[in-house]
Amino acid sequence: MIKVGILGVSGYSGLILFELLLKHKDVRVTYIAANNTTGKITDIWPHLLGQTNLFCERFDIKKAITLCDVFFLAVPHTTAMKIAPELLKENIKVIDISGDYRLKNASVYKKWYHATHTDIKNLKKAVYGLPELYREKIKKAVLLSNPGCYPTAALLGLAPLTALYGKKISSIIIDAKSGVSGAGRKADLALHFSEVNENFKAYKVLNHQHVPEIELYLSKISQQKISVDFVPHLLPIHRGILETIYVALTDKISLNQIHQTYKRFYKTEKFIRVLDMPKQPELKNVCKTNYCDIGLAMRKDQKLLVITSAIDNLVKGAAGQAVQNMNLMSGFKETEGLL
Amino acid sequence: MIKVGILGVSGYSGLILFELLLKHKDVRVTYIAANNTTGKITDIWPHLLGQTNLFCERFDIKKAITLCDVFFLAVPHTTAMKIAPELLKENIKVIDISGDYRLKNASVYKKWYHATHTDIKNLKKAVYGLPELYREKIKKAVLLSNPGCYPTAALLGLAPLTALYGKKISSIIIDAKSGVSGAGRKADLALHFSEVNENFKAYKVLNHQHVPEIELYLSKISQQKISVDFVPHLLPIHRGILETIYVALTDKISLNQIHQTYKRFYKTEKFIRVLDMPKQPELKNVCKTNYCDIGLAMRKDQKLLVITSAIDNLVKGAAGQAVQNMNLMSGFKETEGLL
Amino acid sequence: MIKVGILGVSGYSGLILFELLLKHKDVRVTYIAANNTTGKITDIWPHLLGQTNLFCERFDIKKAITLCDVFFLAVPHTTAMKIAPELLKENIKVIDISGDYRLKNASVYKKWYHATHTDIKNLKKAVYGLPELYREKIKKAVLLSNPGCYPTAALLGLAPLTALYGKKISSIIIDAKSGVSGAGRKADLALHFSEVNENFKAYKVLNHQHVPEIELYLSKISQQKISVDFVPHLLPIHRGILETIYVALTDKISLNQIHQTYKRFYKTEKFIRVLDMPKQPELKNVCKTNYCDIGLAMRKDQKLLVITSAIDNLVKGAAGQAVQNMNLMSGFKETEGLL
Amino acid sequence: MIKVGILGVSGYSGLILFELLLKHKDVRVTYIAANNTTGKITDIWPHLLGQTNLFCERFDIKKAITLCDVFFLAVPHTTAMKIAPELLKENIKVIDISGDYRLKNASVYKKWYHATHTDIKNLKKAVYGLPELYREKIKKAVLLSNPGCYPTAALLGLAPLTALYGKKISSIIIDAKSGVSGAGRKADLALHFSEVNENFKAYKVLNHQHVPEIELYLSKISQQKISVDFVPHLLPIHRGILETIYVALTDKISLNQIHQTYKRFYKTEKFIRVLDMPKQPELKNVCKTNYCDIGLAMRKDQKLLVITSAIDNLVKGAAGQAVQNMNLMSGFKETEGLL
Repeated sequence: MIKVGILGVSGYSGLILFELLLKHKDVRVTYIAANNTTGKITDIWPHLLGQTNLFCERFDIKKAITLCDVFFLAVPHTTAMKIAPELLKENIKVIDISGDYRLKNASVYKKWYHATHTDIKNLKKAVYGLPELYREKIKKAVLLSNPGCYPTAALLGLAPLTALYGKKISSIIIDAKSGVSGAGRKADLALHFSEVNENFKAYKVLNHQHVPEIELYLSKISQQKISVDFVPHLLPIHRGILETIYVALTDKISLNQIHQTYKRFYKTEKFIRVLDMPKQPELKNVCKTNYCDIGLAMRKDQKLLVITSAIDNLVKGAAGQAVQNMNLMSGFKETEGLL
Repeated sequence: MIKVGILGVSGYSGLILFELLLKHKDVRVTYIAANNTTGKITDIWPHLLGQTNLFCERFDIKKAITLCDVFFLAVPHTTAMKIAPELLKENIKVIDISGDYRLKNASVYKKWYHATHTDIKNLKKAVYGLPELYREKIKKAVLLSNPGCYPTAALLGLAPLTALYGKKISSIIIDAKSGVSGAGRKADLALHFSEVNENFKAYKVLNHQHVPEIELYLSKISQQKISVDFVPHLLPIHRGILETIYVALTDKISLNQIHQTYKRFYKTEKFIRVLDMPKQPELKNVCKTNYCDIGLAMRKDQKLLVITSAIDNLVKGAAGQAVQNMNLMSGFKETEGLL
Repeated sequence: MIKVGILGVSGYSGLILFELLLKHKDVRVTYIAANNTTGKITDIWPHLLGQTNLFCERFDIKKAITLCDVFFLAVPHTTAMKIAPELLKENIKVIDISGDYRLKNASVYKKWYHATHTDIKNLKKAVYGLPELYREKIKKAVLLSNPGCYPTAALLGLAPLTALYGKKISSIIIDAKSGVSGAGRKADLALHFSEVNENFKAYKVLNHQHVPEIELYLSKISQQKISVDFVPHLLPIHRGILETIYVALTDKISLNQIHQTYKRFYKTEKFIRVLDMPKQPELKNVCKTNYCDIGLAMRKDQKLLVITSAIDNLVKGAAGQAVQNMNLMSGFKETEGLL
Repeated sequence: MIKVGILGVSGYSGLILFELLLKHKDVRVTYIAANNTTGKITDIWPHLLGQTNLFCERFDIKKAITLCDVFFLAVPHTTAMKIAPELLKENIKVIDISGDYRLKNASVYKKWYHATHTDIKNLKKAVYGLPELYREKIKKAVLLSNPGCYPTAALLGLAPLTALYGKKISSIIIDAKSGVSGAGRKADLALHFSEVNENFKAYKVLNHQHVPEIELYLSKISQQKISVDFVPHLLPIHRGILETIYVALTDKISLNQIHQTYKRFYKTEKFIRVLDMPKQPELKNVCKTNYCDIGLAMRKDQKLLVITSAIDNLVKGAAGQAVQNMNLMSGFKETEGLL
């Protein structure tokens, strides 16, 4: 039984994390905090009435250190890099759900997040928490950088292909669609019900901060430089990401061969479901689960592969993956609390 | 051809008003303003691109006076009562969509709107703009107080009954359901897509500021004091109000008799549709129209009448009714620009 | 460990039941069937991929008898009364989610369900499965009739009042709003996305088949004849019921006194949350849970009580309550698999 | 004033067509019909109460011939090709909204629509009704084939580029997203509210029947063979199509140059709005209008252009464009009834 704390429990990811940890049999949640909202957690999230009596406090690092073995940061970027070093110094393991430790190069971070990185030492040490690719490193991590929601769907959708056929890829286009919770929980006219409902649009076209994260890890997987073109869109739903990924190939590959490759690559993975062809992922099949569903299709000339990858952005794209990482870091069963 | 201006064009009611007036053949929109947002109106409302080149200015009363014959106030309460007197002094006709001139008693206003009324002189003079009941007075009005959205549906649903069977009414309960646009266009966490979507709740139970307005005009119609119990709810849709009204009767009345009464009462009204029984109103049938649809049902013992009344809160409940009133005040055809 | 079966696993209630039972630690699902859809359950419900390999069969009563200790009927009315007697004969306990065994009078059944009851013997024996009221009887039941969704919210919202202040009630109006899943899973133009979305309407006004069920059990609770006026409405959401209940009182009662009564009445109930005043239930707080949230408000003259009662129609209104009943009937912890 | 008729008025496109024609000042709707639904049109579409008393009849070609100058076919494919020849013989102009006359090659038709074309004579004569490209031919058309919804957005989004830079295009990927009304109005479990709501998925991946239509007309525009990769998705909204189009270029072109080209190409077009950069189309800006909004963005290396094209599938993608075509064919002002 370990003691865990969460900063950012008033946000959507923080909430899901809290809910998952409350039901986790090897964990006790000993401390929850938020920077802008304090009070009984059941006043902030009334649906939790009867399930917990915890109080959401203004964050106090001393309390976090005293009360927790593992600490989750479900905060906006730039906040995490101020807190993580203090926790690490006291041997508290840190799982950061923000973007602060995902990129390994401070100048790339600055370019995309418009802020100077102030914890370069730990930036290098942080382990990227995509268990299907980095399970062994994660087991030993003390600072875990939880992947972004868009990168999780993209990397899981592309990993087998880039790992095994990297040389045959000539271009990758990712057309991504996300529910509103990806934008966070805040008073913002752009997120007003009447602005989002019955609407749909692209945003940050070719210019989203998750691009360097996707490119960095795809390049690692394939051991060659890989670039992607990425266009996100806003869906009028609460949660879920579906990415339609177009991969142009230099040579023909048969769809069956690729399908076999995917099946084998993820053979022992409990959270990846490679669908039989011609089935396609749907958001309702992955929402409120830690699954990533993957569909495959091919143009007749066998030179354009279409991969569809679907996750719940709040679960496999954030809180669920964080718990999966915590399980690995703590020696628990990897699926504990997630199936 | 008259010249009209609007203050509050960046809100939902102000927008619909602007759209209706742009297409109105007897009107030219000469001035639009908002207090918190200025700029090209097509930057504020990009869907208007190609239909107008107007600029939305910070409000300047001198411009309003110079440029307009009729001026619409689509503003929060307390703002209207500061501006209306200035316009009236210069013989500009005013149509106020806010709650400032609907109640006739300043202390009742203070109780429900939590503000001191500062224009008591005009409060008495203002004409309540429900054309189906007050058409002749409206034609002569210089200060027109446009009814609230909930009161419009309630009064139209109850007017025939209270006018003709007032003595037989023992109680009235109004269970009202409104789309989100009724709460206005503003950055507010309670109106965030993810808070409203797939949700439903009551609010201001028995305690909404539209109660005294409904009671005041029902009492006038029936020439006796009438009270109502009113519970509003928030629907996860953009626009529309449906009210289910339960009237307990002291004596039996047959449903057919009541249906005949309603048909006769609204016989010449273009915007009221009394449905054949057992048909029921649906929001999709009135949305984006100036119609009020009314359905009737009766308990077997003929002592409980259920009236359902549906409108588009932004049209018959706000902007459409304002245009209908303008038509009457200006000697235009009453339905001009609305059918 | 008991063996359970479900008929009707291709419907929404059947699905939720199956999901709850799959995760229930004292239960093994040994048989699932549906009348119109057969095949791998993961083809019918692809989101279950990886969690079960069961096959959904065309119903065969011999298999049900051989394979199950407890059998759930998640079927339309008239189907259950044909199957239940066969199962009971073989000492299989039956939990019927349909309306077949809720009313105790065959002629009342015929009037509201437009069908002749063919199992009158068991109709009398069936135990009505509202655990908060009939826990002890449920423990001994062999044929359990699971309450309707609307009645569950109504009865839980009204039970304390009718039990303790029955003599002071002069009328009860229930204005109910339900999500679409209440209408079942079937190809029906009235349930087409484009017909329901951004819409709202009343239906079966004062004429819904759940009325006699509500009246029957309210009358039992209060030991006097109670009638209700009931108007259901269709919400553009998937799941959830909120009922706004207006109770006219013959004498004044203070809101605090009623609130205390409710708190005491449900003091030991794990699934009933009587909210502090002036808090109001919201569907998002009960959806995907077995909770019933209850809010209370009172008119100033203390003679009109407004009770708001919210449940998830698929959980506390169907599958969750069925599991709660199974727990009681089987000697398990009542909340097992539900918290 | 011309007399027009519609077959298929009970569908979504047929309805919008009927509404547009009812308000069109140069047109009288003299005959409406549907194959599966007949009766007062206000029983089929209650929101039209008060606006028309027409009766929707079972289709009778003699009546159509007697009563109409122009006839609209808003019917499923294969139905149109049976009716159009009869009407044409009698000199009734035909505007077909189905897919029957869009492709010019009967064997291509058979491959994609799985039916043998039975009116090859007229197939060749039919004019493709995309006014921005084929205005002069449309003016003289007697059989007008209204473009598909997806092809309208695709062709308008790609026309300037393919017309002027066709030689520089190396590949085109179209990632399309459509509201539910695109699938038609029918009882179908896949279109049930609860299946579509809060969901999103791709379908007919690389295999939609609109592909040959897009390729045929892009090839004509660019005077070279053009292929596209096309993946449609289903959005949980009623109406609207947004296509994100990725064009790989063989040579660099500056975004400004392309933007200028688009502005010039559509300079006099009333229904095409080329947005200023970096603005992006949103469905809510085009819904219920005949506009097509186009946004442009470019990868830094100037070799990947991203075009976003948005329309209302029921207006510019069907009924609105049909009216625009009728205006041209009848010598009316092209925008009549559409702005």
